[in-house]
Amino acid sequence: MKKAEIISVGTELLMGQVANTDAQYISGLLPSYGFAVYYHIVVGDNRDRLSECIRESLGRADLVVLTGGLGPTEDDLTKKTVAEVLGLEMIKDAKTESELFAYFSKTGRNMSPSNLSQAYFPEGSTILENDFGTAPGCLIKKTVGDEEKIIILLPGPPSELCPMFKNKALPLLKEEGEDVLLSKFFDISGVPESEVERILSDIISGRTNPTVATYVKDGLVTVRVSASGQVAEAEQLIEEDAKIIRERFGGNIVSENRQSPAEVLVRLCEREKLMLTAAESCTGGMIAEMITSVPGASNVIGSSFVTYSNDAKIRLLGVDDAVIEKYGCVSRECAKMMAEGAAKAAGADVGVSTTGNAGPGTLEDKPAGLVYIGVYYKGETVVKECYFKGGRDHVRRRASNTALETARRMILGIEAANGH
Amino acid sequence: MKKAEIISVGTELLMGQVANTDAQYISGLLPSYGFAVYYHIVVGDNRDRLSECIRESLGRADLVVLTGGLGPTEDDLTKKTVAEVLGLEMIKDAKTESELFAYFSKTGRNMSPSNLSQAYFPEGSTILENDFGTAPGCLIKKTVGDEEKIIILLPGPPSELCPMFKNKALPLLKEEGEDVLLSKFFDISGVPESEVERILSDIISGRTNPTVATYVKDGLVTVRVSASGQVAEAEQLIEEDAKIIRERFGGNIVSENRQSPAEVLVRLCEREKLMLTAAESCTGGMIAEMITSVPGASNVIGSSFVTYSNDAKIRLLGVDDAVIEKYGCVSRECAKMMAEGAAKAAGADVGVSTTGNAGPGTLEDKPAGLVYIGVYYKGETVVKECYFKGGRDHVRRRASNTALETARRMILGIEAANGH
Repeated sequence: MKKAEIISVGTELLMGQVANTDAQYISGLLPSYGFAVYYHIVVGDNRDRLSECIRESLGRADLVVLTGGLGPTEDDLTKKTVAEVLGLEMIKDAKTESELFAYFSKTGRNMSPSNLSQAYFPEGSTILENDFGTAPGCLIKKTVGDEEKIIILLPGPPSELCPMFKNKALPLLKEEGEDVLLSKFFDISGVPESEVERILSDIISGRTNPTVATYVKDGLVTVRVSASGQVAEAEQLIEEDAKIIRERFGGNIVSENRQSPAEVLVRLCEREKLMLTAAESCTGGMIAEMITSVPGASNVIGSSFVTYSNDAKIRLLGVDDAVIEKYGCVSRECAKMMAEGAAKAAGADVGVSTTGNAGPGTLEDKPAGLVYIGVYYKGETVVKECYFKGGRDHVRRRASNTALETARRMILGIEAANGH
Repeated sequence: MKKAEIISVGTELLMGQVANTDAQYISGLLPSYGFAVYYHIVVGDNRDRLSECIRESLGRADLVVLTGGLGPTEDDLTKKTVAEVLGLEMIKDAKTESELFAYFSKTGRNMSPSNLSQAYFPEGSTILENDFGTAPGCLIKKTVGDEEKIIILLPGPPSELCPMFKNKALPLLKEEGEDVLLSKFFDISGVPESEVERILSDIISGRTNPTVATYVKDGLVTVRVSASGQVAEAEQLIEEDAKIIRERFGGNIVSENRQSPAEVLVRLCEREKLMLTAAESCTGGMIAEMITSVPGASNVIGSSFVTYSNDAKIRLLGVDDAVIEKYGCVSRECAKMMAEGAAKAAGADVGVSTTGNAGPGTLEDKPAGLVYIGVYYKGETVVKECYFKGGRDHVRRRASNTALETARRMILGIEAANGH
């Protein structure tokens, strides 16, 4: 495998204004093109420090991807500094220049000299067009010492960077990689990480290819199987471990392809021709948002309810006010009536509900993190009592994912209804 | 200002499984404690490369914060490597050990030798307790050469790291910083970035303290004013620029304190005693999710609707089916009836609606990115026709934030109703 590093340029990253999702996106795609990512580096809009980073990365890696610092306001720091380090002239690209003129005349805005600087690139660059903004990227091949290096420059905004990297830059790397590193991800629910590790200890320990590792995120245990080699060889190594993992975890495997619990549920409901709905109190729309984030969700969801107040629970879902008075709205009983009421009100096959205290502070004497999750399906309703640790957003996210995963298990018959 | 660097340890970061939100969180807080962050570095679970990173960072910075690699499954790579580089022994902490025994006996799980390794720390460490997990962090002060260095080790999971850093580590840094760097962030809507830069060109150009910079995120232009010096002095420098910015942008300033459009709207509605609701088609619950993500949202929202299908729009919101037949559901007319219908159905003062094509692909011959946003308030309804570029999630996020911001402008009388 060749070595890659990612240098992200931007004071806004060092000030904590944004997270470095660019590096995450690029890192997820490079290994299957034959590049192993060894470092991410974030450096500010400072020429000397950036120069030093570029030199250091070029000394270690075959591919250096730089993100950010291409816009007109940053004075093209990244392009100029890369050109300087590589000893290349900045050359005007006529096509980019005419496109810039066309863009500014179309939008009726004045073009400043700094805008025009976007048309200059280190000599020998392959220009990467920007379909979602004005700053193009570029790819440079340069022999440094006696080694061929590739340098890719991409704009910082993720909405521009992601399509440019995937559609314009990666195809140019296709012939570069020798061996590749392929990975497969199994998301597992219902089994704690330590237990997953025990069950897989024979394929986790003491192996170098493939490797198996576990990681916990949002309440699911992810098992990553990675193998390197020629594509077919790596695929076969992964498939051998995949068989073992499937045998040992069965229906507890939520997804094999990094699909979210929402995506898995949407695809399952499409296959089974089931309509979903939700009645959300503490998650406040997050479950509906997750479901509708999946393209094609309109096949499985027609409507959904955010019922934050008791009045809304009673009026929109038909929850019995005597039940709320007796047990409180953060209760098993209320979650059950919400799930059933939502399914009825929406004319849906599956009704999911959440009611709890996402924090901060206590609610009806219920501690922050206590959430009741209801799922109605085929005349039965499961209610789960969950305690999630962490802040408000974390509790809501965990509750939403648990609700979606509980629905999957109900539909597949893994989760039996539990009396209440 | 003292210098800080953040080293994040984890193959899952280099594989693109997670974004480095830990570094973002830490970076947002350090400058006001007198530490300027110069680099973020991400390195894999590899002892040699990690050693090298730690040595290099210690050579440049006064404070090095390491995140990740403290859990039992990672074999305590970070702690051992830090101890090695600093030439410190690993010492068992009796209090941590007994807490681990208590935790495992309480949860009825077996404690492995790797779990016990969590009780060992480099000698001289101040232990940072973990209120949300089993792996404690630590803070080490060590003289390297003739300089006093601070090294902080934190667990990787954000739900553990954030409270530990804020509540346990930062108070220990309070006396360390000399001068501080304070920042204030103004989020501006309705004015493009180039125009914001033109309006502020006199305070952007050629100054070193305070500095003013702009940044675009999710359709808002952020103006960051940063000043260094003693706290009172820095505060005053910032306040002088703040006055200028307030004078020049007035009601176009959405927030001065990095509050989200949702938070700003919730606080405004609390003050004005207004109840909100939403009717969401293409945003599918995101607006309600954003509103309810704000603690105290129950004061301003009782219920909200996700109406994905035409039938749901007609049945739950009273949209006229003849209107949908004539104009389609992605239309100005439908957005207007949705906003008005939601306010009526929820008994709310303000009704927000979205209907559009979040993509991918076309819908009713409407292109991806076309969204109609409606806001009903006091007998009037504004409808905006927006084209957002980018992927499905980006379009939905932009549409949601625009809807919330349009509601703020309506309530404040900045946005006049526009006939339709």
